[in-house]
Amino acid sequence: MTYCVGMRLNAGLIFMSDTRTNAGVDNISTVKKMHTWETPGERTIVIMTAGNLATTQSVISLLDERAKAPEDRNPSILKAPSMFQIAREVGRTLREVIEGNATTGQEADGAFGATLIVGGQIAGAPPRLFLIYPEGNFIEASDDTPFFQIGEAKYGKPILVRAHDPEMSFEDAIKLLMVSFDSTIKSNLSVGLPLDYVTYNADSLRIAHAARVETDDAYFQTVSSGWGEALNVAFDQLPPFRFSG
Amino acid sequence: MTYCVGMRLNAGLIFMSDTRTNAGVDNISTVKKMHTWETPGERTIVIMTAGNLATTQSVISLLDERAKAPEDRNPSILKAPSMFQIAREVGRTLREVIEGNATTGQEADGAFGATLIVGGQIAGAPPRLFLIYPEGNFIEASDDTPFFQIGEAKYGKPILVRAHDPEMSFEDAIKLLMVSFDSTIKSNLSVGLPLDYVTYNADSLRIAHAARVETDDAYFQTVSSGWGEALNVAFDQLPPFRFSG
Repeated sequence: MTYCVGMRLNAGLIFMSDTRTNAGVDNISTVKKMHTWETPGERTIVIMTAGNLATTQSVISLLDERAKAPEDRNPSILKAPSMFQIAREVGRTLREVIEGNATTGQEADGAFGATLIVGGQIAGAPPRLFLIYPEGNFIEASDDTPFFQIGEAKYGKPILVRAHDPEMSFEDAIKLLMVSFDSTIKSNLSVGLPLDYVTYNADSLRIAHAARVETDDAYFQTVSSGWGEALNVAFDQLPPFRFSG
Repeated sequence: MTYCVGMRLNAGLIFMSDTRTNAGVDNISTVKKMHTWETPGERTIVIMTAGNLATTQSVISLLDERAKAPEDRNPSILKAPSMFQIAREVGRTLREVIEGNATTGQEADGAFGATLIVGGQIAGAPPRLFLIYPEGNFIEASDDTPFFQIGEAKYGKPILVRAHDPEMSFEDAIKLLMVSFDSTIKSNLSVGLPLDYVTYNADSLRIAHAARVETDDAYFQTVSSGWGEALNVAFDQLPPFRFSG
């Protein structure tokens, strides 16, 4: 499986992905699921992928090829006039790849399916964040839906629902995402370290931080062990239950 | 969906289930998923159900009928010599009901599938807790696997993993389960109040508490709102993240 989160903040966008891929529990590898394209000062695009690895790698390679030689192949996400058009192009590419493999044609076959998060900004328009379904259609994040999760999303959702605040700093958002990822990693073998993250400051039109949290990362270890203790303290602070009878 | 948890404690067994059942989001009802049988002083049996409602109701009705008129129908879970034999009988009944409906015979069809938690004690043996799969086979809880969840299990798992302690009191266990259920209810519409719980003191051979947590339960409201605040306090207590670059 996979776990990726893309989140809107007032300060900009933040993305975090794990790197584990597996075909059965005895065939696991590390694969980067975080992909970025940039024309500094003009546009920044971040894409995270979950699902069938052959599908997602094909999608990224196609987007990449078209972005690198835009005169040869069109449309290119580096030429698209808006984030909306980029999301459409990514959705189209995804559908194209899935259709090429699925014997059943149109519909997104579970075996070849993939889900993507696309975010970024083009000069002159605000930052935008999209979730792309295997069918190629997509939805956009808003104030009411400020984050998207793909992959193994359930374990790490409750803390995001409780603690997300659009006013939070990138530092706090990384801390929050690490807690969410740690809860997921503790519960599901198919999500694992290292983690990749990217932060994007609104209107900067260039990536602020892109880094990898390695397996032995001291801060992640602190969050992981500290969160267990903090949860137990929080749990003790809740008033005790008493049987009424 | 459904959410049920059965948990082993040193003090005994505790069970909690939600009561929501749905066939689509526009067809929801309240159904009891917690079922108990007792011969006080001799045996106590608790069964919780998740999955296809027609299947689970048939299973419970069959077990009930056989328990009420044991001279007519055999085997009865009130006559079985051990909790292991009870788990086998429940598994057999489940398979029988699923086979009766599935056109494909043997295999547990997703549409008719159900998963059950069976726990209890028979005089002279320790309390035991089992998870019964749609195929009718089952596994038993142990010190390493002290709880089972069925239904919409993922949202509420991280807190159980972190805070479960076999030494905990029934009161603390109910508080913990309420936190786990609250996280699930906040994330998934198909799990809802009221909740049913049963506590069983080891070697008592009778149910200690069996009660319903109603939608307006004051203590549950306190846990629900208090946990959000407690989580935010816990989150603030984690050391801040700093960008290294």
